[in-house]
Amino acid sequence: MTETSTLVDTYLAAFNEPDDDRRRALVEEVFAEDASYVDPVMAAAGTAELTAMIGGAQTQFPGHRFVAGDEPDAHHDVVRFGWHLVGPHGERVATGLDVASLAPDGRMRTVIGFLQLAVT
Amino acid sequence: MTETSTLVDTYLAAFNEPDDDRRRALVEEVFAEDASYVDPVMAAAGTAELTAMIGGAQTQFPGHRFVAGDEPDAHHDVVRFGWHLVGPHGERVATGLDVASLAPDGRMRTVIGFLQLAVT
Repeated sequence: MTETSTLVDTYLAAFNEPDDDRRRALVEEVFAEDASYVDPVMAAAGTAELTAMIGGAQTQFPGHRFVAGDEPDAHHDVVRFGWHLVGPHGERVATGLDVASLAPDGRMRTVIGFLQLAVT
Repeated sequence: MTETSTLVDTYLAAFNEPDDDRRRALVEEVFAEDASYVDPVMAAAGTAELTAMIGGAQTQFPGHRFVAGDEPDAHHDVVRFGWHLVGPHGERVATGLDVASLAPDGRMRTVIGFLQLAVT
């Protein structure tokens, strides 16, 4: 696995981790301390807010999971990747595209997310 | 037309403008003074570098034009949009996806671009 795919896998693991402490640890693996995140429905700045924001998203979608979508594409200090939100019965509820700028240590510093309803 | 689509149209007009002074004027309409741009093959910081970078891209692709691709999607202070590079005979040479963060005045401050070869 490349560094980029490891980073994206850990990102998705953080979004799927229900335990606050373990999620916080995963968030700190993926995001720089001063990281910011914005998508159409959520925003957060810093690892504490990010950890809480993801917990809030989980509450809204019980029994759902985030899985990898479009293969990551990276250049310079940026990466683009896709994901799907999958419901309890395996159905795709949403599809997203995230673009992250990385800090010098390789963690994400800014993440911009876009959503699209899954075409079924 | 929405503000977002006007911004993207002016962005594409800047990429298609061969005259240095007119291109500079379009770049200044679209980009904040401290704007930065990065895609897999080019990078620039500030409107002077951006104007020169686009001129360089035009030199590499004589007779080509940039046209709108995927419809712009905007939220908060970010926008995503697609484009195609079209060759002299109308063929799509490349397809790109750009994600821009906007300055408070609505101009682009950071642009991150990704390329994909056109699937023909």
